Amino acid sequence: MTSLMINHPINSMASSVIRTLSQSQHMQLPMLRPTRMHALAIKSDLEIMRQQMVVVDDDESYAMKGGEGPHSYAKNSIIQKGLIDGSKRLIHEAISQSFDPKEHVHGNDEPSKPICIADLGCSTGPNTFFAMQTITEAIQQQFQSHGLASQIPDIQVLFNDQVSNDFNTLFKNLPQQRIYYATAVPGSFCGRLFPKQALHLVHSSAALCWLSKLPSEITDPDSSACNKGRIHYTDAPKEVAEAYATQYSKDMGNFLHARAQELVENGLMLLQFPVSNVLLDSDVDPAKVFELIGTCLVDMAKVGVISEEKVDSFNVPLIYPSVKAVKEILRGCDECFSIEWMEILEFKNMVSLPTVQIFISWFRAALQGMIEKHFGAEIVDELFERFAEKVKEFPDIMDTDKLKLDVLFVLLRRKNKPRP
Amino acid sequence: MTSLMINHPINSMASSVIRTLSQSQHMQLPMLRPTRMHALAIKSDLEIMRQQMVVVDDDESYAMKGGEGPHSYAKNSIIQKGLIDGSKRLIHEAISQSFDPKEHVHGNDEPSKPICIADLGCSTGPNTFFAMQTITEAIQQQFQSHGLASQIPDIQVLFNDQVSNDFNTLFKNLPQQRIYYATAVPGSFCGRLFPKQALHLVHSSAALCWLSKLPSEITDPDSSACNKGRIHYTDAPKEVAEAYATQYSKDMGNFLHARAQELVENGLMLLQFPVSNVLLDSDVDPAKVFELIGTCLVDMAKVGVISEEKVDSFNVPLIYPSVKAVKEILRGCDECFSIEWMEILEFKNMVSLPTVQIFISWFRAALQGMIEKHFGAEIVDELFERFAEKVKEFPDIMDTDKLKLDVLFVLLRRKNKPRP
Repeated sequence: MTSLMINHPINSMASSVIRTLSQSQHMQLPMLRPTRMHALAIKSDLEIMRQQMVVVDDDESYAMKGGEGPHSYAKNSIIQKGLIDGSKRLIHEAISQSFDPKEHVHGNDEPSKPICIADLGCSTGPNTFFAMQTITEAIQQQFQSHGLASQIPDIQVLFNDQVSNDFNTLFKNLPQQRIYYATAVPGSFCGRLFPKQALHLVHSSAALCWLSKLPSEITDPDSSACNKGRIHYTDAPKEVAEAYATQYSKDMGNFLHARAQELVENGLMLLQFPVSNVLLDSDVDPAKVFELIGTCLVDMAKVGVISEEKVDSFNVPLIYPSVKAVKEILRGCDECFSIEWMEILEFKNMVSLPTVQIFISWFRAALQGMIEKHFGAEIVDELFERFAEKVKEFPDIMDTDKLKLDVLFVLLRRKNKPRP
Repeated sequence: MTSLMINHPINSMASSVIRTLSQSQHMQLPMLRPTRMHALAIKSDLEIMRQQMVVVDDDESYAMKGGEGPHSYAKNSIIQKGLIDGSKRLIHEAISQSFDPKEHVHGNDEPSKPICIADLGCSTGPNTFFAMQTITEAIQQQFQSHGLASQIPDIQVLFNDQVSNDFNTLFKNLPQQRIYYATAVPGSFCGRLFPKQALHLVHSSAALCWLSKLPSEITDPDSSACNKGRIHYTDAPKEVAEAYATQYSKDMGNFLHARAQELVENGLMLLQFPVSNVLLDSDVDPAKVFELIGTCLVDMAKVGVISEEKVDSFNVPLIYPSVKAVKEILRGCDECFSIEWMEILEFKNMVSLPTVQIFISWFRAALQGMIEKHFGAEIVDELFERFAEKVKEFPDIMDTDKLKLDVLFVLLRRKNKPRP
C-alpha cells in the first residue's frame, strides 16, 4: 500500500545488486553492506553481528505445495483424522504442568509483556491454526485456573516456514476469531529466526523430519554412500542411511542451538514428529513409500521420459529417525534443555486407512515442489499416476496397522543460564 | 514444511467453517470460538479481549500489484529518484536527535531486549528494504556515537501491509545482507496490529494517503456528496472532498490511537506522505490525474465497454490532505504524541520528469488491483492506453514544477503515560 507518486526510488544499479544477491538461497553471514563513508565505523559492529547472528534464509528441503488448488497442502492436509485430538490433549497437559502464568504477570507499574509463540514449519494452514488455537486456549486456561484471568497478556504468534512457503495463502486464511496477533517469519529453522530470548513457547509439528539438505556423499559416484537408482535411504546400503542420520543429527543440533538462544529461560518447546519403530523383518518400513516412488522414476527413465542421471541425483530429504537416535541428540543438548515429557503416540490410532487417491494426494502435496524443481513440472502427473498403480499393487503401504510409524511428542524446557 | 503423513488433521466441517469465516475481509472483534465445554470459563476473557483488541484484517484500499511482472509494484516503484536521499538525511537526523540508545542497554544480568521497528504499508519491496536499511544503520550509528557499539541489541523489523499484499514476493527479495530479523504482519494499520508496547519505532512512507474505505455517501444517489461521473474528489462538489476529509480524519485518528497502544513510551514514529499545496487557480492539483482517469472511464462507458453505473460506483480512496488538516489531526492526539519535527519536502526536488510510459506504470501498479476488482481484469489494458493518450494531451500533469504536490515528513514521539 503505497502512494501513487511518492515512493522510495532507487537507482537501477542498486536494484540489480539486490536481485543478484537474493538469487542464492543461502544467507550465512548477514551483515551491513557498508558504503565507503561508513565502512570503517561499521567494521566493529560487523564483527559482532557475524558472531551473533547466523540466519539461513532457506534450505534445500521444499515448502509444501502452496495455494488452494486440488494438489495444495491446504487441500491435502486435512485428512489425517485423529492426530489433532491426540496432540490437543498432550498440549493442554503439557501447558497445564509446565507453563507458569505468574512469570507473565507484573506489578501495576510495569506493562505486561506479550507472550510470544512460534510455530516452526507452519506451511499454509489450516493445521497450524488449530495447533495455535489449542495452545492459546491452554494458556488462557492456565491464567484462569491461577485466578489471573484479568491479567492475560497480549499473545503474539509467529508463523515460520521456508522462504518458498506460500505465506499469502496462510495470511488469507488466518482465522478471524483468533485471540493472537499474527506474524510470519520466513527462513530455515536450522538457523536463527528470532531475536535473543524473544520466545516463550515453540511448537513444531511434523516438520523436523525434513533435512535442511541432502548429504553430499549420496550423489557422489566415488562414495560408498552413493545412492544410485534409489531416492531415499530405504533398502539402500547402510552408508546411505548413516549419511542421512549424520545430516539429521547436525540439523537437530543447529535447531536446538538456535532455539536455546531464542527462548527465554524456562521457555517451552513442544515438538512432534514421526519416528520409525521397525523391529521385525515383517514390519512395513514407513519410508517404504519412497522405494515405490523411486521404482516409478526408474521405470520412467527406462522408457526415456526422464534421464537415468536425473533419477540418480534425486533424493528425498526426509528421515524417520528411531526414538533412540532422538534421545541421543537431545542428551547432547542437556546443558540448554531439560526433557520434561516424552511420549510415543501410535500412528495407527490417529489416522484411519485412506483411499489410494487420498494417500497419493498427501505425497503429491509434499513432494511436488521438489519434483518440479528437479525433473520439471511436466512429469508430475505421470509420476503420481504410476505411483497410484504401485500402491494398488502393494496396499500394505497404507495399512496403518502394519506400517511401523509412530509419532514422538517431546516437551523441552529451556534451562536457566549459569549466572556470572 | 510438514511431514508426509503426520499432519494435523481436521474434519471437513471445521475446515468449511474456517473458510466461510475468512471470506469476509473484516475482522472487528477477534474472540475465541468457544466450544460448549469452555464457553462459560472463557466468557470473562472474551469481554477483556473485546475491549483490548480491535484488529482490522484488511480494508477497502487495495494492496499494490504483487509479483515481479512488468506491471508490478516491485518493477514500477524504483523510478522516483531523489526521495530516498531526501528521506535518508531526515531519518538519520531524526534518529540522531531523538533515539536514545541508553534506553536499550541494561546491566549484565538482564538480557538486552530487541529493538522492534515496524514499516507500515511496506508493499513488496524494494523501497521498504532501503528505508529499513537506513533506519537500522542510523540506529547502529547512535550506539557507536554513544560508545555502546558492543551493546547493540538484536533488531527485529516487522513489515506490515494489507492481507492482500504479496508477502511472498517481499520475503523472496529480502536483502541477504540485512542486520535484522525479518517478520511480516498482515492487516490494516487503522486497527491494532501488534501487542501493547511492542514497538520502538514506526515508519510509514507514502501509505497514509490511502483511506481505509470510501465514505458511503459518495455513492449514495440521495446524498449531496454523491460523486456521479467522477472517480475522485478533484473537481467534485465540495461535499465530496469533505466526505473524503472526514474519512481521512477518522482513519488517522484510528491509526494514531492504535500506535499509541503499540509504541513504548518515548517510542518514535517517522511518517512521510504526500500533501497538496494548491494555492492558485493556475496550480496543477496533484489529484488532477484521477480526473483524467475518470474521463477515460466515462468515455469507455459511452462506447459501451463498461456500464455507467459501474463508473458512478467507482472511486479511488486516496487523499492528498493539506498540511493544515494534518496538523489539526495531530493536535487531536497531543495527549499521546508530541510533534518532534515537521518538514515539508518539495516533490519537484525529488522526482525528475518521467516519460509518459513510466508515469502510466506508476498508476497502473497502484490502481490495477482495485480496477480489476470493480470492473474486471479485461478492461485494464484499454483503460491505461486511453489514459496514456490523455496524459499526452495534458502533459502538465507530469510536470513536477507545476504539480502542487509536497511530501510531509513528521517525527512523533510517544509521550509518557500518566502514572497512577
